[in-house]
Amino acid sequence: MLFTKPAESWKDALPIGNGRLGAMVYGATGVERLQLNDDSLWYGGFVERNNPYLKERLPEIRNLVLQRKMREAEGLIAKYFSAAPASMRHYTTLGELQIALNQDRAFIMAENPDNTVPADYSANLDLMQGIATIAYSQKGIRQSRELFASYNSNVICCHYTAEQTPAKGAIKLDIKFDRSASNGFWPVFLADECRTIRDNTLWLGGNAGGTLFGAAVRVVTDGTIENSYTRLSVHNASEVTLFVTASTSNREADIQGSVLHTLDEAEKKGYAEIKAEHIADFETEMRKCVLRLHTPHLTSPARGEGHLEPVAPLPLREGLGEGSDGTSSPADYFNFGRYLLLSGGRAGSAALNLQGIWCGDIAPAWDGKYTTNINIQMNYWPAEVTGLGHTHFSLFDLIKKTLPNGRKTAQVMYGCRGAVVHHNTDFYGDTAPQDVYFASTSWTMGGAWMALHLWEHYLYTVDKTFLKEWLPVMKEFALFFIDFLSDDGKGHLVTNPSVSPENRYYIEQKLSPLPLGGVGGGQHINITPTQPPPEGEEYYDYDTPICAGPAMDNQILRALFAACIEGDKILGEADPLCREFAEAAKKLPENKIGSKGQLLEWQEEEKEAIPGMSHISHLWAVYPGNQINKKDSPALLAAAKKSLEMRLANGAGDGGWPLAWYICQAARFDDGAMAGAFIDKMLATTNTRNFLNCVPGQNNDFIFQIDGNFGATAGIAECLMQSHLGCIELLPALPPSWKEGSVTGLHARGGHIVNIQWKEGKLLKAEIQAGSDGPIYVSGITPHLTSPARGEGQLNPINTEDGWTINAKKGIIYVIEGK
Amino acid sequence: MLFTKPAESWKDALPIGNGRLGAMVYGATGVERLQLNDDSLWYGGFVERNNPYLKERLPEIRNLVLQRKMREAEGLIAKYFSAAPASMRHYTTLGELQIALNQDRAFIMAENPDNTVPADYSANLDLMQGIATIAYSQKGIRQSRELFASYNSNVICCHYTAEQTPAKGAIKLDIKFDRSASNGFWPVFLADECRTIRDNTLWLGGNAGGTLFGAAVRVVTDGTIENSYTRLSVHNASEVTLFVTASTSNREADIQGSVLHTLDEAEKKGYAEIKAEHIADFETEMRKCVLRLHTPHLTSPARGEGHLEPVAPLPLREGLGEGSDGTSSPADYFNFGRYLLLSGGRAGSAALNLQGIWCGDIAPAWDGKYTTNINIQMNYWPAEVTGLGHTHFSLFDLIKKTLPNGRKTAQVMYGCRGAVVHHNTDFYGDTAPQDVYFASTSWTMGGAWMALHLWEHYLYTVDKTFLKEWLPVMKEFALFFIDFLSDDGKGHLVTNPSVSPENRYYIEQKLSPLPLGGVGGGQHINITPTQPPPEGEEYYDYDTPICAGPAMDNQILRALFAACIEGDKILGEADPLCREFAEAAKKLPENKIGSKGQLLEWQEEEKEAIPGMSHISHLWAVYPGNQINKKDSPALLAAAKKSLEMRLANGAGDGGWPLAWYICQAARFDDGAMAGAFIDKMLATTNTRNFLNCVPGQNNDFIFQIDGNFGATAGIAECLMQSHLGCIELLPALPPSWKEGSVTGLHARGGHIVNIQWKEGKLLKAEIQAGSDGPIYVSGITPHLTSPARGEGQLNPINTEDGWTINAKKGIIYVIEGK
Repeated sequence: MLFTKPAESWKDALPIGNGRLGAMVYGATGVERLQLNDDSLWYGGFVERNNPYLKERLPEIRNLVLQRKMREAEGLIAKYFSAAPASMRHYTTLGELQIALNQDRAFIMAENPDNTVPADYSANLDLMQGIATIAYSQKGIRQSRELFASYNSNVICCHYTAEQTPAKGAIKLDIKFDRSASNGFWPVFLADECRTIRDNTLWLGGNAGGTLFGAAVRVVTDGTIENSYTRLSVHNASEVTLFVTASTSNREADIQGSVLHTLDEAEKKGYAEIKAEHIADFETEMRKCVLRLHTPHLTSPARGEGHLEPVAPLPLREGLGEGSDGTSSPADYFNFGRYLLLSGGRAGSAALNLQGIWCGDIAPAWDGKYTTNINIQMNYWPAEVTGLGHTHFSLFDLIKKTLPNGRKTAQVMYGCRGAVVHHNTDFYGDTAPQDVYFASTSWTMGGAWMALHLWEHYLYTVDKTFLKEWLPVMKEFALFFIDFLSDDGKGHLVTNPSVSPENRYYIEQKLSPLPLGGVGGGQHINITPTQPPPEGEEYYDYDTPICAGPAMDNQILRALFAACIEGDKILGEADPLCREFAEAAKKLPENKIGSKGQLLEWQEEEKEAIPGMSHISHLWAVYPGNQINKKDSPALLAAAKKSLEMRLANGAGDGGWPLAWYICQAARFDDGAMAGAFIDKMLATTNTRNFLNCVPGQNNDFIFQIDGNFGATAGIAECLMQSHLGCIELLPALPPSWKEGSVTGLHARGGHIVNIQWKEGKLLKAEIQAGSDGPIYVSGITPHLTSPARGEGQLNPINTEDGWTINAKKGIIYVIEGK
Repeated sequence: MLFTKPAESWKDALPIGNGRLGAMVYGATGVERLQLNDDSLWYGGFVERNNPYLKERLPEIRNLVLQRKMREAEGLIAKYFSAAPASMRHYTTLGELQIALNQDRAFIMAENPDNTVPADYSANLDLMQGIATIAYSQKGIRQSRELFASYNSNVICCHYTAEQTPAKGAIKLDIKFDRSASNGFWPVFLADECRTIRDNTLWLGGNAGGTLFGAAVRVVTDGTIENSYTRLSVHNASEVTLFVTASTSNREADIQGSVLHTLDEAEKKGYAEIKAEHIADFETEMRKCVLRLHTPHLTSPARGEGHLEPVAPLPLREGLGEGSDGTSSPADYFNFGRYLLLSGGRAGSAALNLQGIWCGDIAPAWDGKYTTNINIQMNYWPAEVTGLGHTHFSLFDLIKKTLPNGRKTAQVMYGCRGAVVHHNTDFYGDTAPQDVYFASTSWTMGGAWMALHLWEHYLYTVDKTFLKEWLPVMKEFALFFIDFLSDDGKGHLVTNPSVSPENRYYIEQKLSPLPLGGVGGGQHINITPTQPPPEGEEYYDYDTPICAGPAMDNQILRALFAACIEGDKILGEADPLCREFAEAAKKLPENKIGSKGQLLEWQEEEKEAIPGMSHISHLWAVYPGNQINKKDSPALLAAAKKSLEMRLANGAGDGGWPLAWYICQAARFDDGAMAGAFIDKMLATTNTRNFLNCVPGQNNDFIFQIDGNFGATAGIAECLMQSHLGCIELLPALPPSWKEGSVTGLHARGGHIVNIQWKEGKLLKAEIQAGSDGPIYVSGITPHLTSPARGEGQLNPINTEDGWTINAKKGIIYVIEGK
């Protein structure tokens, strides 16, 4: 991605990261700003928040819900589902490293640095190598810097060079740290230490609500270094390398010792070697899966003032698409999604939160935490399918953290076995309810849904060792529901209370007298947050999110019970619990179709209070689930599509993560035109120059949530290849405008790797590298292709109408060629 | 002060406090909000910030300043005067107690409480008793609550009652704590614990950057209490008392234990007794000094929508002004100033910071700390003269805290003996420089100025025990300058570097080549933060605040050296240091008059860069100092007045603390008309309904600094009585519009207490209660009064033109009566 000027606001800066460390690089000319993050810098430690008084009020709440006395139920939910405190911990910025290049006066309050942008300015974020390069001329000298985050060395590197003969003396830098809460005009400093700790090392240390943190920058240069205690100044240099690293008490006790050790090692290794290692690491991962679209006439608008850098022509995998390269926004968006996943979530790092790892705020929106009713899961939707399954482990680590907490919450709040996660968790794996917000607080499905990511990882890797390790975790999240599910009086087991995130419906309800002794004296209190009843009426439409057994809950539980049972079978464990899972699954309410042909979100056909609701929770079984599909349940799939269309007709789908989800849905509907339109809209409504998924906020501010980036990336993959029905589907929902292109390195369930090339909207060639022995079923949009065998493999067409079966042997590449 | 509706924003809420605890009471009808403060809740602990590398660069900086190479000096000051971190700690809010009265649904996210304001709503802040009363009818029942902060019991009391027969059942309350950073749309919770710890006690506990804090509310009621863990709900009550208290690790280790003990004691004592004790304590202090103006036709505008409650008719001191009472904004403003001083700064509490004790922000403007180049001193200007000298000890405690730190800073940064405070300090008595802001960072006079408050307290009390204890502290702050002062090359000792807070002037300066090897190669770099030089020119106007020996510094040092010497003489200590003080004082530059008849701010007649500068630092010697006065130096006083007039002509004086300072100046100029105009403007520009000194901020926000309230209160006192010239001056600068009125309980130096009554702008009667034996010189604006003896005292007219001498005996009241 190439830009011709620095970022003017945080959202347009260039994200770099190695999973643990993140930075937003502004690319400023006078004083460069690196907004820094450490993935483990969360305010305060774990807090036990379970409300012990819920348990005894739960039967009362359940009865009220079954009687549809939602207002009364809400009164109790507000008090007894509320955890203490009602909020979890929040993610927070590490601060900012500021680097003044050849500035006479740097870092003076009330004085602005000279950030003039020369005509030859360029800032380039190379998505393949993971390196940001900023270059421009200053006083006749070409000044350049490279920035990247090394995973191997755990440092962010900034390398300054200048073209001048002799170069010596072309560079003067002043370097300082900052960490302030800005309230618009006065920066309140929020750290304890901000000074040199070596003559070449500057330190920032602080305490965020009890979490200790430290960051340091090491200066290596051929110039001289002036240590003025509060900053480092480099004089007379031709080359300067800054190594930046950080840690927190959430990782280790001796923060400064660890940070210094990391810097010493980096200095010893040297910039050149670290860079070489970084490229070897990062580019290898990036080039494993690349989308290229040959669509010179883009439908998507140009991004801000910058123009998109063409991804450099790649050698395709053996035999695929020589000479086929090109550029398009959707391809860049896809590759950028993988770039973010690889930069923000590496094995050993914290899970990707609402902003991934990049957060410039002391107190971010929604705490920058892990929302489990869609957002954290969406972050990992592209992980397996785009060949970055190893990043999934940052989520699995978080799931592991929720386990002991979730057991305690299950026991203390519900008196249930197993483990539960509500609609959020945080760095510490907090499992108690979040907020006092009826449309989400009492939802208990977060852990169950996350546990299915473990199952997906198994399906993609067929790694039984992994399954052996994690199946018990899946079972614990399932076990909770064996105890938690309750009878709905109609023969079904339901979650009660629950919500269909975060939707509401109207109930016709007779209000009971409020328990307000003295006031009101028994009359019906006419108070409603939505609309007052007609004068003298006792009945009115009251809207509520509270329900029992919404479609999504049943879908998730059916999937989780089935996965536990199948996993158990695969491992041959014959756990007697599985019989209970099977029994419970049978009693879950079925998916139902409503009077308008739509899929029902709740057990009854309710009157939706928000017809344009962005959440499409009841379509969970279409994607990311697969219970509703064209093979097994075409009628339900049609109903699901009808539901989505109804939402769209009422205003849903204007961008962000909901639209990303709709892309995935459209792909599962095999509707390439719909998917293509959603993808185009996704790009058009992303109000950053760098594709970060931002929506406008208050006071000219913005709100950044990374989930949209990941969801749309997964959706694009789903347009090109699907594998959820026991077969590999090639180009199932190719957007019509994507006439020609190729994708390499998509992963299919079963461990297979798939390359696809197409032209004129038709499959030209596909390669499938088998990940396991046994038959691979393949279908595609061009059933009349010949399918010659190639390489060592053997392609055996079978008598399906539109596909083939490969009797595959692990490791062999099978090729399907067009005419 | 009476209001007819609740506060819509923080600035208009009603402040209550007992020095340690503060609250802003919104007076809302549905959900009452008490924004809480604990005076010791400062983020993080003490940080050692001294820059050890200054010492060796100091001679170089001084040389540059003497050579007027200010740009180069600034370059070094930016690096070496900057402390690490550059900022001190900040004050922060304790959080909020929310109390829902008879609300069906309280504390639900995204739902607004019913805060309808009934027609009979009233909120009254009784300044004399220190009690806020809110009353209104709700569903036909009169609901009332009283709120005050008890100094004796260290609790904030909220007492809810309802008028109904039977009253039982008229009140249902829901009570919860909150402590969140609001970023406009998402509240990030900033505490660790928020739950019940007894069935009648709710607890809020947290960690602000390492400072632990806790607050609790105890519920006492005739109703029933429901404990839902996250909140307390009172049902079926006719009366509810809430006791609120708090503490921090800055006070004690066992915060929860201490808080519970305080609540237990309060509950044991009971609301009625605590209230009676509170009134006895608070009203006694308030009635000691009261201003009443009989000016029914106010020149000041009405305040917001509220109207000012007449101060209840007070019995004047014996013999004074029976029947004379009335109301006016200036009188209320004066009484409110004393109210704030008494509520915010009690013996044993932290010093009054930029917002006193009331701060609703997590990260307040200017850190809510102690700015020593005018603001903290102004906070205490009314303390002695209005009879609240005991509140001054909250400042003295802070001075004591600065002593060990100030010694270290003196030694580490300057290699000097004694102690130094720069232009700010914080709760921990931090003494290192603050900010990287040239107009204030390198100023070393904060401690010297504060030390003079010790001397003032002695002058007002003639308490030798106090002097004995504190004279060594004064000497330490003086001693620093024996080492720090340096020769200016012209035979004077000067502070170098320094600034005249926070003004700037133009110097004609030849720029040196920047130390930018390679870039520029020796040419003159044409960079300036103010204005570029003409093309090809090497000279241009460059503005700087950096200087040596500004008038203010010399004035403060002259006063401090003199006070140390006199104090030493009074105690008969004959400290040899005093000879050094005297020698140094002689070498300080004198005050000078410039070409326009103005008092010079710097040693030369510089070209002011900000002609409308609000700071009038060089007029320090007029007020709060007294070296420039009508008796000893009338020419300098005229020059000072000229300086102020020049500032006014250039736009200074539009409100806030500068205008408050100008009131004091006008009083010292004996210019009642000028003072009156300033006072009227002060009231007119205070954009709160409650007189809190706010100025508009960004985004419809506001900035509150309490200093203006205190400075103007002192200024009003100074208009009515002065005692800085060895005599008591009665009505020296009575504003002409204040035709008739009275003031009781003003304190004069010497320990005397003065009551004054006037009519038609002329003295009617004065009472002077002698605070010490010996002659009291009295002068007044009505020299032709008869002066009969009265009471036991003896009034002996002497042959002064406009006054009398009383050969006074301590404790006796002397009366001067008009015809």
